[in-house]
Parts: sequence; C-alpha cells; structure tokens
Amino acid sequence: MPDLEAALAYAKDHQADFLEEFLSFLRVPSISTLPDHQEDMHKAANWIKKQLERFGFDSVAVMPTGGHPVIYGEWMKAGKDAPTILFYGHYDVQPPDPLELWISEPFEPQIRGENLFARGASDMKGQIVAHLKAVESLLSTSSLPVNLKYLIEGEEEIGSPNLGAFITENKNLLSCDLCLNGDSSILAPDMPAISISLRGLAYFEIRVQGAAGDLHSGTFGGAVDNPAIVLCKLIAGMRDDLGRITLPGFYDHVRPLSKTERAEMVSMPDEWWMEQSGAAMLFGEQGYSPTERATVRPTLDVNGMVSGFIGEGSKTVLPAQAMAKISMRLVPDQHPERIKNCLEEYLRTNAPPTVTWELEAMATCPPAIVERDSSAVHAASRALEAVWGVKPVFQRQGGTVPVVGLVQDLLGVDSLMLGFGLPDDNLHAPNEKMHLPNFRRGIETYIRFMLEFSS
Amino acid sequence: MPDLEAALAYAKDHQADFLEEFLSFLRVPSISTLPDHQEDMHKAANWIKKQLERFGFDSVAVMPTGGHPVIYGEWMKAGKDAPTILFYGHYDVQPPDPLELWISEPFEPQIRGENLFARGASDMKGQIVAHLKAVESLLSTSSLPVNLKYLIEGEEEIGSPNLGAFITENKNLLSCDLCLNGDSSILAPDMPAISISLRGLAYFEIRVQGAAGDLHSGTFGGAVDNPAIVLCKLIAGMRDDLGRITLPGFYDHVRPLSKTERAEMVSMPDEWWMEQSGAAMLFGEQGYSPTERATVRPTLDVNGMVSGFIGEGSKTVLPAQAMAKISMRLVPDQHPERIKNCLEEYLRTNAPPTVTWELEAMATCPPAIVERDSSAVHAASRALEAVWGVKPVFQRQGGTVPVVGLVQDLLGVDSLMLGFGLPDDNLHAPNEKMHLPNFRRGIETYIRFMLEFSS
Repeated sequence: MPDLEAALAYAKDHQADFLEEFLSFLRVPSISTLPDHQEDMHKAANWIKKQLERFGFDSVAVMPTGGHPVIYGEWMKAGKDAPTILFYGHYDVQPPDPLELWISEPFEPQIRGENLFARGASDMKGQIVAHLKAVESLLSTSSLPVNLKYLIEGEEEIGSPNLGAFITENKNLLSCDLCLNGDSSILAPDMPAISISLRGLAYFEIRVQGAAGDLHSGTFGGAVDNPAIVLCKLIAGMRDDLGRITLPGFYDHVRPLSKTERAEMVSMPDEWWMEQSGAAMLFGEQGYSPTERATVRPTLDVNGMVSGFIGEGSKTVLPAQAMAKISMRLVPDQHPERIKNCLEEYLRTNAPPTVTWELEAMATCPPAIVERDSSAVHAASRALEAVWGVKPVFQRQGGTVPVVGLVQDLLGVDSLMLGFGLPDDNLHAPNEKMHLPNFRRGIETYIRFMLEFSS
Repeated sequence: MPDLEAALAYAKDHQADFLEEFLSFLRVPSISTLPDHQEDMHKAANWIKKQLERFGFDSVAVMPTGGHPVIYGEWMKAGKDAPTILFYGHYDVQPPDPLELWISEPFEPQIRGENLFARGASDMKGQIVAHLKAVESLLSTSSLPVNLKYLIEGEEEIGSPNLGAFITENKNLLSCDLCLNGDSSILAPDMPAISISLRGLAYFEIRVQGAAGDLHSGTFGGAVDNPAIVLCKLIAGMRDDLGRITLPGFYDHVRPLSKTERAEMVSMPDEWWMEQSGAAMLFGEQGYSPTERATVRPTLDVNGMVSGFIGEGSKTVLPAQAMAKISMRLVPDQHPERIKNCLEEYLRTNAPPTVTWELEAMATCPPAIVERDSSAVHAASRALEAVWGVKPVFQRQGGTVPVVGLVQDLLGVDSLMLGFGLPDDNLHAPNEKMHLPNFRRGIETYIRFMLEFSS
C-alpha cells in the first residue's frame, strides 16, 4: 500500500541529494537544435534511463526516432484496476545564446538566493527531476498507487518533428488513461495553477533574394533594390498600428471568447507584465488586456532576422539576401496549415518583383484546450491545495506544447498540464532559473497527485 | 632623362615578376575592420615600404596614426621645376565574408581566365602595385619625370578615421601639385575613363531596445512590443514606393543637375546594370536612369541588420534588441552632419514609445567634384588614349573616397581619380577580382601619365 506520509518524509530527508542530482542533469548541454550536441543528447537520455532503472522500472529503453531518441520506461505493478498515467517531458533545452548576457555559465548551475540558474532549469529538467523524485519517494518507502509510463522526448524545443511518428508506432506501449505533462508553469510562487488551454504555433523562415551576390553600395546603390529594405517593408505590413495582424484571413477562424470566459480569466495587471518582461511599456492588440493578448489572442512575432554585414564597424555592402524567422501563436480554431496559406497569399500580393522569396514552414502545432471538469483536474486541484494551502487557479497558457495535440489525436487521452515554472524564469532567454521552493513543492504535489488520482 | 620606350619595354619584359609580386601582396589579409588582423596590417604596410626602399625612395617610413599606420616615401630628384605628385592609395581591404560564397580562398589568389580572384585585387592593391611597377619601370631604365610622394593609408575601408589628423600634422611633408588617386574604376575593359565626381557617405548604426532581455514568445508574445518589427517599420518608412527617401529634408541641399550635365552622362543601358549586378530587375528613384541613380542621385541602403535567433532551426524567442546598419550615399551639396539631423528627426518622430533607440554615426564623408579642365585631366586623357586607342569618357562615380575631400581641404589640391577597376570586380563582395589585361594597361598608363604631366 502506498504510504503518503512516509513518501513525504523521504522527500524532505533527501532534499540535498535531490538537488545534487538535479545539478548533474543540468550540467549536460542537451541542445537539440545544434548538431554539435549530439553526444550530449545521448548523455541526457541515459541520465534519465539510469534513474528509471534504479527505481526498478520495466522496459526501460532509449528508443531511436528519426531525430533525437525518446526514453521510455514503465511501472505497471499497481494492478489492472489502477489507472495508468503517461508522464510526458522533454530532456532537450534551448540554445543558451546570447552567451554574454548570462551572469553565470548556462551549463554550470549556480544557486543565487532561492533560485537555481541554468539553461533548462525550468524548461523543463526541473519538472522531470521533480517527478522522478516523487516516484523515488513513493517507491523507496512503499509503492506507486498508479501504473506509470514515462515518455521523455528530445525534440520539444525544435517542434517535436518525430514525436508524432513515434507515438503512432508505439500506440499500445503508450496506451494510458491520462497524460501528465510537466511542461508548464504557475503564475506566482504563492498562486498554484492548472493550465487548461495552450496556444498553437506556426513558425516560418522567409528568405528574400535580390541581386545574385552582395554588391558595393557605392557602385550599385540606387540602381538595384535592397532585399533588407524589401523584407522590412513586408514585415512592417504584417501588423497595423493597433497591433492587429494584417495577413489576409488571419482572424477568420478565431473562436470568440464569451463574456463569462473573459470575466473568469486571471488577468494580471499591466505593472505585473512590465515587471516580468522588463519592458518599460506594453504593446499589443487594442481592446484586450495584456494577459488576454498573451494567452487567448493570436500573435505574430519576428523571432530573428539577418541581412548583410552585422560585425563591428562599417561595411558598405548592398546585401543580396535577407532572412527573417517569423512565428504566430495560434488560438482555437486557427490551424497552422491555413495560417501558412494566409502568409503565402500576403507575400504573393505584397512582395515586389525586384526580389524573389522563399517561405519555409519550420515548426507547427495546433492550439489545444483541455477538459476542466475531469477527475484528473479535480485530483490536481486537491493536491495543489494541500501543498500550497490555497485553491489553484485555472489558467490559459500562451505557449505551445506540441505533444498535447498529438496525445489527443493519437492516444485519445487528455493532457493535464501540471508544472511549477514561473513567468520570470527566463525561458528561452539568458539566466534561465528554477525557483527552488517551487521545485520542492512540485515533488510533494506530484506525490499527492498520484494518490489523489488513484482514489 | 626619362625614357618612355625603355620603361615600356621593361614593363613588358617583367610581366611575370610583376604578377608574382602582386600575388604576394594579395596573400596578406589586411582587413582593417577586424582587430584580429593587426599583424597583417603591419605586414602589408611593410610590403610597400620594402618596395619603395628598393626603388631608392627617401624618407620611407611606416608612420603611426591613431589607428593603422600610413606608409610614406618620396623621390624628389626631378628638380624644383618639375611638378610634385602625391600618389594616394590604401592597403587595407574589406572583410571577405560571406566566406562560403567564394569560389577560391579570398587570400589565396587564383587566376581564372583573364581574371585574378582575391580580396583586395581591385580595391585596391592592384592599383597600388600597378603604380609601383610603373615607377620601377622608369627608375630601372632612366628616371622619373616628376617628383613623387606616396601616401598609402590602412583605414580607407573603415572610413579613414585618422587620415585627416595625419594630413593636418604632415602638411609640409605631403605638399604637392596634384593628388593622383588610384582608387577608382573604368566602365568596361575597352572604355577608359576619368572620374570627375564622387558621392559622399553617411553611415549609421541604429539600435532598438524593447524589453530588458530576450523573452519567450509564447509567454510574452502579444503583451509586449517586438523591437525587430519596430525596426522594420522604421526602415520601411524611410523609402516610398517610388524609391524616394522620405527622411525629412533629405533632398533639401541636392544641387540640381542641368540638362547639359544629364545629357553628357555616359548612361549605361538597363541590361548592362542587370548583368553587372546579377539583379533580375532594377529599382530606384523614379525619373532617373540607373546610371544617374547610382552616381549623381543620393541613396539610402540597409547594409546589415540583425535581431534575435539567426541560427539553424527554430527558436521561439521574442528578441530584446534589433540593430541595423544604414548608410546614405550623398551628392553635392548634401552634408553628412545635416543628413544625421534628418535621420534623428525621423527617428524622434516615428519611433514608438514602446522601445528606446540609439543612433551612432560610423563613417562620414562629404561628396566631391574635381576640376575637369585642368592639366592633370588633360595629361590623363592623353595617356589613356595612347594605351587604349580611344578617348576616355568622363564619369561620375557612385562610390566614396574620403581622402579626396581631405586633400582638397587640407592640402589645397585637386585629386585625379585614375584607377583601372571594373564595375563587375565584386568590390566588397565575394569573388573580388582584377582584370589582368587592365592591370598591365594600368602600369603603362601610369608611366605615360607621369611623362605627360611633367611636360
């Protein structure tokens, strides 16, 4: 029989060990987007594999995919009548650049105050370790109240290109009653939350080509067009002064929010958004609060752009090429494929004949909504309230978790988003951190959730 | 007594040696803008110093400046009644990037057909070597008909920031009757030319800052502004659809061209510009030919820009910063300082309050016109006609040669622009080249010019 009190006592007694293991996992620079880190990816995968083996999991394997491998492992000894949970996580992290803005090294974790700084600390090695340590706390003292499977992928930060095929090929292996997804965050250290909606993603690279090669701006400036200026004009035209996206048909399938839905949203004040982002002033679609704009309204952002000479000093080049990475966050019922058509139509209509252009879809994911009135959400609510002492809020997240759509489509199960990151954790940015009190509360919450969900 | 025929014969006999020396000079990667090449800059300077010492020049020295050194040397044995020519050149070259577009290594010269490919071949080590070899041909067989001084700087490609101070401090040393400037080109291999006007330059870096650091586009997208989009909007607004620059007051001081001036310009057909640039279609200010737009009309170009993540793959970052290098080519009587005011006023008026911005002036030079009806221009005409068999055309150049304005202001002498580059030499671009027949005709032209100018 699972013993809650013994597990909680074990977790408390082993805080120092848990932290040490967390640090060793963070030291592996498992950057999925950079080919140089192939070996680190395997190192991170094996780190998890060893944990599951230590706990006595069965069928533990680093399984190949078309890209980085997936770690699988299962503990099915709770019996046929107990529910089966699939814990989803990703062991890959974002590239750390710009490196010069990190206070400590991204892969040399450093504790400053209550925070642990390292790339991947919050997104999402912290959540993976928290769940592993919840499992360890139960198994070291009694047993698990649920059957448990792990699906830890290595390509979330590059849009999970091989996860769909992997789940399709391993449907039986992955069959479950619920996907527990740790890749999420709460609003503040004292405000536990469950995420009930996610935005989708449509990420593109646009390449504009002018002359055949770079030219001298003195010899040719004025005679031929400048692809960087052309790209700027194209990007400038994608958003109006009221923050509305002007791609033709972009808003056509946006499901309107009801007054009730808008009213019950936990909207943080402008000051909170300014503090969290470090922006001196906010900006976005007129008629919506910053929280709405960042969670339930679609957006368009330039994620990167480059053209010509960007080194120190002055080079008088008239560039031949210009490139921009542009992505849209999507809300129900927008679809990445339809959004690509909108962008293509916009470029066809607006790109001048002085350049040629290419559009490449890089990563896509539909938006998702999860069922609020379910046993999983109720169990999570009880677990969170027991640990935090307050009822959780139901939040809509602005980010994208590709696996949620895949798990719904391919395994037919809902995902419960239950993670413990914070909005100021600097995800995808320099000085990413994990709030250590939250890391410890996360372990306790996962222990309690498994027990609540089994009853 | 100077002996023309003997000098020409010497040049003909030593073609192979001259080429070998040219190659050895090209192998020195004297990139002035990159701090890593400090040593190469000295190597290139010493290469020239040794040549002048070999010819028996006096006062040969590599002279320090606030930046890269200047090479000086003089041959004053033509006597008090002979004119004194100051030969100006620069031994620095542009950075070679993007490296992947070079067919052969930029600093491993390669001859393909009639062309010699290497960074700096045409801009302008080829012209320096051609003049040195003209001097060698005369001195090895007889003597020079003129007094000659060399002023070879190492900072032309970064806007000659220390040349003004150097000339000011060495006014007596550099006193002369004419500055012969080899940093120019002709229109086609069979079309010799003398340049009579140059455009000026105003080069800026604009830096736009949004949030304090890079943000996750899922968490913050929609709530805060995107500095890359802001920069694109600012750049997009600098040029209208007719190719006119929209900065307030930009055209205020442009001296109108008379009908006669426009009529006598050698305007190359559209097809020529398309072939030279490799652009499938031309674009520029409405109402002017491509040649006019590239030589006697001012322009605005983006020379480079960067923001966010520009590596392979997709990173969903909302960048904190965006930067663009923007430069204007100026015509009489525009002035860089006034143009900076135009740009500043534009940014003040148009930049939104969601970002902060900085404007840095990087390199500036006023436009220049040289005297057409002078003994120098007549001598050059005769020399060019003797070598090419056709009369030269008088051309207006679109590029910028900062020293021309300095020499006029500080030494009170005109500059004769007499160089042998070609429009398709890929200056400042991958696969820069020198047309070798032109290199040899250049040597003969310089020999003949010195004789013509002395008579």
